[in-house]
Amino acid sequence: MIKANIRISLKKGVLDPQGQAVKNSLKGLGYDVEDVRIGKHIEVSIGGDDIDRANDTVRAICEKLLVNPVIEEYSYDMEVSR
Amino acid sequence: MIKANIRISLKKGVLDPQGQAVKNSLKGLGYDVEDVRIGKHIEVSIGGDDIDRANDTVRAICEKLLVNPVIEEYSYDMEVSR
Repeated sequence: MIKANIRISLKKGVLDPQGQAVKNSLKGLGYDVEDVRIGKHIEVSIGGDDIDRANDTVRAICEKLLVNPVIEEYSYDMEVSR
Repeated sequence: MIKANIRISLKKGVLDPQGQAVKNSLKGLGYDVEDVRIGKHIEVSIGGDDIDRANDTVRAICEKLLVNPVIEEYSYDMEVSR
């Protein structure tokens, strides 16, 4: 089985109201933070051990379903488990 | 400046309805996925370059504000930028 760890984050320059809210709370609690950006982390387990096919699957599901290309970008890494 | 990349995911065994919904959609689109788990990815920029202090800050903000210890676990890595 192959596990893909997908990281989806807002593109630089896109406003992150959720991140701003967390930043303000942390500053209010006295923590010295300069910025907070919040994104998604998605683990997808794919059957078989064909890494090329798994790469194609991950790119397709990111570009067709999971990622909004207008405001988001993604990166991923793969773990093969026997 | 120091940037912490924090990964917050549901503990094993905790039901992930959001992940189940994405899995069912992907299967419906014909993709061979076995499981999908959805978590958060949070980038926190911390002032200064004192890595020990930054580590203490990240652990404190995770344990006091960002992570629900009953159902979630977290991991993080640090990037120091000059």
